[in-house]
Amino acid sequence: MTRYDIAVIGTGPAGLEAAITATVRNKNVLLLGSKQLSNKMQVVDHPIRNYLGLCDVTGKEMAEAFQKQLDVLGIEVTEKKVTTVYAMGSYYSLQLSDGEYAEAETVILATGVVAGKPYPGEEAFLGRGVSYCATCDAPLYRGKTVAVIGGSPEEEAEADFLGEVCEKVYYIPLYKEEPYFTHDNLVVLKEKPQEIKGAMKVTELVTDQASHTVDGVFILRAAQFPGQLVPGLETEGNAVKVDLQMRTNLPGLFAAGDIAGQPYQYIKAAGQGNVAALSAVSYIDEKKRAGK
Amino acid sequence: MTRYDIAVIGTGPAGLEAAITATVRNKNVLLLGSKQLSNKMQVVDHPIRNYLGLCDVTGKEMAEAFQKQLDVLGIEVTEKKVTTVYAMGSYYSLQLSDGEYAEAETVILATGVVAGKPYPGEEAFLGRGVSYCATCDAPLYRGKTVAVIGGSPEEEAEADFLGEVCEKVYYIPLYKEEPYFTHDNLVVLKEKPQEIKGAMKVTELVTDQASHTVDGVFILRAAQFPGQLVPGLETEGNAVKVDLQMRTNLPGLFAAGDIAGQPYQYIKAAGQGNVAALSAVSYIDEKKRAGK
Repeated sequence: MTRYDIAVIGTGPAGLEAAITATVRNKNVLLLGSKQLSNKMQVVDHPIRNYLGLCDVTGKEMAEAFQKQLDVLGIEVTEKKVTTVYAMGSYYSLQLSDGEYAEAETVILATGVVAGKPYPGEEAFLGRGVSYCATCDAPLYRGKTVAVIGGSPEEEAEADFLGEVCEKVYYIPLYKEEPYFTHDNLVVLKEKPQEIKGAMKVTELVTDQASHTVDGVFILRAAQFPGQLVPGLETEGNAVKVDLQMRTNLPGLFAAGDIAGQPYQYIKAAGQGNVAALSAVSYIDEKKRAGK
Repeated sequence: MTRYDIAVIGTGPAGLEAAITATVRNKNVLLLGSKQLSNKMQVVDHPIRNYLGLCDVTGKEMAEAFQKQLDVLGIEVTEKKVTTVYAMGSYYSLQLSDGEYAEAETVILATGVVAGKPYPGEEAFLGRGVSYCATCDAPLYRGKTVAVIGGSPEEEAEADFLGEVCEKVYYIPLYKEEPYFTHDNLVVLKEKPQEIKGAMKVTELVTDQASHTVDGVFILRAAQFPGQLVPGLETEGNAVKVDLQMRTNLPGLFAAGDIAGQPYQYIKAAGQGNVAALSAVSYIDEKKRAGK
């Protein structure tokens, strides 16, 4: 398996700038995110006035300028979601939502900020009935009943795959569009999840309308809460704790952009992406010098 | 006297982004620096590859993009050097090199980094024979002998003015060009300053070649060391100590860009300028809410 120098997770301004700076510094970069770059950015149609150098651009124009720069530097986006990042001691292992893994010396988290907070019970039952990856954990629920909380229509394919394996799948969309499935053992619930309950393992998903007996709950959000994405990562509310060099408490793991806290601004995110990339480059070079 | 909401000192990427963000947030901004924006930037003729959004631009092209944005937002550069920033309790007073003062609720330092360090004796004799402003302090040296250490040809006019007032002026250029003066009591010394000595007040400037008896030493650098620019400011080496919100130890005073430490990168500077401006805006708004 290729072990990358730097895995950058996220394709907003922080992730893109990190990938660009790392590439200019001749590092081998894996950039994980969306080929649309940032969805948030794409929908901004009022002019963005305070990104120094890009004068009165729309979000779409900004994304085009960013894409052009990726093309010139030959940087490609790998369209995979990262489920979990594991610190392996001298490197990081990234579990991807298609069940594959990737390895990198260093990781830069630039996934943006996740609104809200974990459901009560979500953290307590993580790995004991709560999962963030259908492809990875489906075999554990063969012939059982699970609930899937879907953050966007893109998650329907994963839920549908669970339908193939499980006895019954409750699907709770957190959006308005009508879900579509090919398996008929999927039941759409228009309810609001409130709590995950259980004893040794998950037994129940409580919503605003009912309590459902389940063996597992899959929570499929657009982005993970940082503490769940990286076990052992120090956070403060929804933000990763960083210093001025964008270092986290885990050596070789850096964060930049909205995930590193307020203000939520494009140019601030880009600036932090640059700093995170240079910190990752220094970290790799120092390790090399120390002969590790 | 107009009291500005925010005085931004410096016209590199950090200062420009700070002024732009503060203007977009409807604050009354005084932007002090050079109409050339950043000299350092203007002379970069290899393509800058890692400023997200501006793809493979020269320093000149980058400066043009920045200038265009200033023009669109109606932001003007006031070409004055700041000698000292005084914390007045509820506001800041800026002493300018033309002898004038400006007042602002908050200040953003974005002057870039000053190479080297103060001369031995420079800090000890500050205000007791060491000065950074000829226009301000010339009257104290009427009929006396002073030395001027000039960082660039632009400082010659100040030295020439001292020639009008003082008995004798030694001028030590830190550059190669031949200095030109209209007064004949200026003596150019091609020596390297090494130490400033004295007892209660300065009595001597020691160079690599001689010791000169003087009543004062004017040190005219392109930018001040931050601790000298703002009495009471906490620094670490040549950098101002800041937190992630670009706050310094002085309430209402912020720093961004190279002056806030490494890495010395355009996009990092711009990002920090944005954060500093938003922190200044919050500071002003909170003060207003508290009715102060």
